[in-house]
Amino acid sequence: VSGEIRYATSIGTSDRDSITLLGHDLATDLLGKIGFSELAFWLIAGRRPTAGQARVFETVLVALADHGLTPTAIAARVTYLSSPDSLQGALAAGLLGGGSRFLGVTEDTGRFLAAAIAELSADGEQLAEWTEGRWDVVAERAVRRQRAIGLVPGLGHPVHKDGDPRTPVIIAIAAEAGVRGPHLLLFEAIGRVHHRVLGKRLPLNGAGVCGAALADAGIPVELLRGVALLARTAGLLGHLSEETRRPIGMEIYRLVEEQADYVDPDPPSGSHP
Amino acid sequence: VSGEIRYATSIGTSDRDSITLLGHDLATDLLGKIGFSELAFWLIAGRRPTAGQARVFETVLVALADHGLTPTAIAARVTYLSSPDSLQGALAAGLLGGGSRFLGVTEDTGRFLAAAIAELSADGEQLAEWTEGRWDVVAERAVRRQRAIGLVPGLGHPVHKDGDPRTPVIIAIAAEAGVRGPHLLLFEAIGRVHHRVLGKRLPLNGAGVCGAALADAGIPVELLRGVALLARTAGLLGHLSEETRRPIGMEIYRLVEEQADYVDPDPPSGSHP
Amino acid sequence: VSGEIRYATSIGTSDRDSITLLGHDLATDLLGKIGFSELAFWLIAGRRPTAGQARVFETVLVALADHGLTPTAIAARVTYLSSPDSLQGALAAGLLGGGSRFLGVTEDTGRFLAAAIAELSADGEQLAEWTEGRWDVVAERAVRRQRAIGLVPGLGHPVHKDGDPRTPVIIAIAAEAGVRGPHLLLFEAIGRVHHRVLGKRLPLNGAGVCGAALADAGIPVELLRGVALLARTAGLLGHLSEETRRPIGMEIYRLVEEQADYVDPDPPSGSHP
Amino acid sequence: VSGEIRYATSIGTSDRDSITLLGHDLATDLLGKIGFSELAFWLIAGRRPTAGQARVFETVLVALADHGLTPTAIAARVTYLSSPDSLQGALAAGLLGGGSRFLGVTEDTGRFLAAAIAELSADGEQLAEWTEGRWDVVAERAVRRQRAIGLVPGLGHPVHKDGDPRTPVIIAIAAEAGVRGPHLLLFEAIGRVHHRVLGKRLPLNGAGVCGAALADAGIPVELLRGVALLARTAGLLGHLSEETRRPIGMEIYRLVEEQADYVDPDPPSGSHP
Repeated sequence: VSGEIRYATSIGTSDRDSITLLGHDLATDLLGKIGFSELAFWLIAGRRPTAGQARVFETVLVALADHGLTPTAIAARVTYLSSPDSLQGALAAGLLGGGSRFLGVTEDTGRFLAAAIAELSADGEQLAEWTEGRWDVVAERAVRRQRAIGLVPGLGHPVHKDGDPRTPVIIAIAAEAGVRGPHLLLFEAIGRVHHRVLGKRLPLNGAGVCGAALADAGIPVELLRGVALLARTAGLLGHLSEETRRPIGMEIYRLVEEQADYVDPDPPSGSHP
Repeated sequence: VSGEIRYATSIGTSDRDSITLLGHDLATDLLGKIGFSELAFWLIAGRRPTAGQARVFETVLVALADHGLTPTAIAARVTYLSSPDSLQGALAAGLLGGGSRFLGVTEDTGRFLAAAIAELSADGEQLAEWTEGRWDVVAERAVRRQRAIGLVPGLGHPVHKDGDPRTPVIIAIAAEAGVRGPHLLLFEAIGRVHHRVLGKRLPLNGAGVCGAALADAGIPVELLRGVALLARTAGLLGHLSEETRRPIGMEIYRLVEEQADYVDPDPPSGSHP
Repeated sequence: VSGEIRYATSIGTSDRDSITLLGHDLATDLLGKIGFSELAFWLIAGRRPTAGQARVFETVLVALADHGLTPTAIAARVTYLSSPDSLQGALAAGLLGGGSRFLGVTEDTGRFLAAAIAELSADGEQLAEWTEGRWDVVAERAVRRQRAIGLVPGLGHPVHKDGDPRTPVIIAIAAEAGVRGPHLLLFEAIGRVHHRVLGKRLPLNGAGVCGAALADAGIPVELLRGVALLARTAGLLGHLSEETRRPIGMEIYRLVEEQADYVDPDPPSGSHP
Repeated sequence: VSGEIRYATSIGTSDRDSITLLGHDLATDLLGKIGFSELAFWLIAGRRPTAGQARVFETVLVALADHGLTPTAIAARVTYLSSPDSLQGALAAGLLGGGSRFLGVTEDTGRFLAAAIAELSADGEQLAEWTEGRWDVVAERAVRRQRAIGLVPGLGHPVHKDGDPRTPVIIAIAAEAGVRGPHLLLFEAIGRVHHRVLGKRLPLNGAGVCGAALADAGIPVELLRGVALLARTAGLLGHLSEETRRPIGMEIYRLVEEQADYVDPDPPSGSHP
């Protein structure tokens, strides 16, 4: 028998008279005194953001909240159609699409940039003073190496072929907030030099710039996907709310079914090997 | 064949040069100009909040973000232990506990209050001027009727037996923000009169007051659970972030397994009926 | 502090040398000696099925495994498109649609029939000998009462308007297997008499007959949905397997996005109330 | 605009009078004539199994159905506690733990063996006649290479340190059924030779032998995880069924909460960097 296995947590606790969250009294120190996105940063990063970091974090959450009828929105809406009694199930179904591909660019870009920066024998203060030319050298090398093994994350967009409208705005806000650090500087350099390696010019996409900005704001790379999921939670709730007021789930279902061609399995499926 | 099935959405869209969210240009009108929780309110309620509504909404999100090692946090942590490659899966597993019971109090309370208010032949303006005594009459009737069919939602707390520390703070913030409307007034009245019916005094709990405050802020009752889920997303990301830094999932698993007594099925499970 | 909290389970346990499942040694008594669906029945019902019950259970699992590009299959496929690294996430997204509406008919029908039977002051043996005429009386009363509060579960099908091809086959197999009991007898009676109440003839659908057959086989009504989910797991894995070989997720996404009309929110969403 | 996007599926379709599944009429050709696990194999592999393959597949499903209070069972049970109205949510929460770690051994082992076999310049017929000694050479090379980059999947078990009781039984059933092919032969060879590389003897675990057996039965490696998930669906339904009859979810929750030590975040979380 045990009674021995114990473990520690610093997220929160409560007793008869108080609730503690992140070492602070929820009722007296946090309610009405901290914004939700600031609290979310704190929970995710394990430390309270500076005002500048909080501003960048909030901007990224707004940028990633929604992007129309994506696979995540489709999954949430048809699941709500099928199980309207379980809003949490529809939301979860939507979030489960937040993996390596669609919502994954934010994380992939952050990891890619962080790995390239980790190789530089210079500390943050020094990197902040590097010239564009110096970043361009690092960027070209990083793109060259990445291209050998796959796509360069954060480059290109299926719709915004001439430039993602979010990208310059987020960079400007980060600069203004004082959190335009090595990840964004390297990402911008990639925007300048990638055509030398790839032979074509691609826009820096919004999901990628969000990853760079979050990394500069101090979000650990392994939690970048989590930030995208938090942002998308709001967007999915928007889709589900619309579904309660003006549903389209049934039309999506009918459309998908109607456009399917059933073809017999081949080779003849009844034959044994 | 179709090509005919079409459907409308007002959440968002994008074209080559711009992204539209809720009828506004994301890059030029929203990024850096709207808070995340304000955007979330807008998405959920289908309209932009007033400053007061936004303040109450933000307070509620902070209040509901976390409450320690609840079933939702346990599910998220052991799922992350089992599938560390899928942060979205661990988050989804946690949110799936946001149903009728633990996270459901917010919604249940909002629905209960809204139903009682819907019966009153008075409009919002009139209700705002009602005396406490008049609300007490409505409250006593509502408690009496509800007690006949089940528990009164929003009353009582397993830990905070002398009062939930969140409750007075949230009521005060709502009052200050000008959104203390009929739902909160009725909920407070229930706090004053329920002992006449139930024969004991129970605290108004935090999840319940959040439901009342959100309803007064204009969140549709069918989306109240969604607000709780958004708040909890931040809390679960906090647990998962801690799990990446100082994991306890394996200890939870070992503890749960160790404390289980295996008992043979009874009646003897091999016997056929 | 504890060490005191303990709890019992009879599902399974293991020690250094053996694995016990449902009171039996997995390696020596079960592997190769029990079918998977028989084991699933045992796990779900808490007792081993008779041969006849196992046969009906297996038939129902085959009947409910798939029904084309339903919302569950759509959710699974677009989630796989978005997160191909997480097969479990795509499967879970699909199963989350297994709620009150699409996959819910099996459970709803079983519950409806069980409630009507529970009112009869007769035991199982007596009910088995009732004439069709006597069942017709019970059926007409049950339909009349249900119609006053909602739809009669198990009646009607959007595609199979002249009769669901699964229904007679499942009834015949249950009869042959000796498990055509009161639930199926009542369901068949509803098929004969409902037009007297509803004024039109509707087919007994396949999901409904599965619910009736499972209830007669001894599956508790609160687990009927679980049987449908187990069956659908196989179907969803079929869709996901096809998605690995000949993907259509991206086409579904493009189609859904293309057929959407973006309309500006109304009332103008920027205006404050 | 479209109307043009169409796509093909071979899983199933239906019209007014019939339901087609995998090219066969569900009602007349499949119901009562095919077992559920045989159908599941067909759906997953895209072709009908031989009798021997079906037998191995069924054995593996039984072997992987449950293993006590694992993280998947814990997640399912506490989610059910929290949302008893959504059985599908509790099941999905459990399955979401079926990722890289706990349920992942089956897939990892199958992939590892398949990769090693793919390098051999011999066809299946030739491999079937190889001597043990020849397999031992391949096995030792594979273990040596794998050890350089990580753990050898399928080796070792935290509880069954002297041998997993499932392993010899599954190998014997596969041999008897005529589907003991290169994957199992290589896995057995690994069991004989790994100590030469690792310096200690570890048992071949049950999850690993299931991966090898499924690969020999013709399940594509990218779907191996799916088979484990199907098996576990039955086990999780067993846990949830027990939870409806004799719940332990609340005790698990209380236990986990009670054994937690809340420690203040460090460094002091209110300080800004």
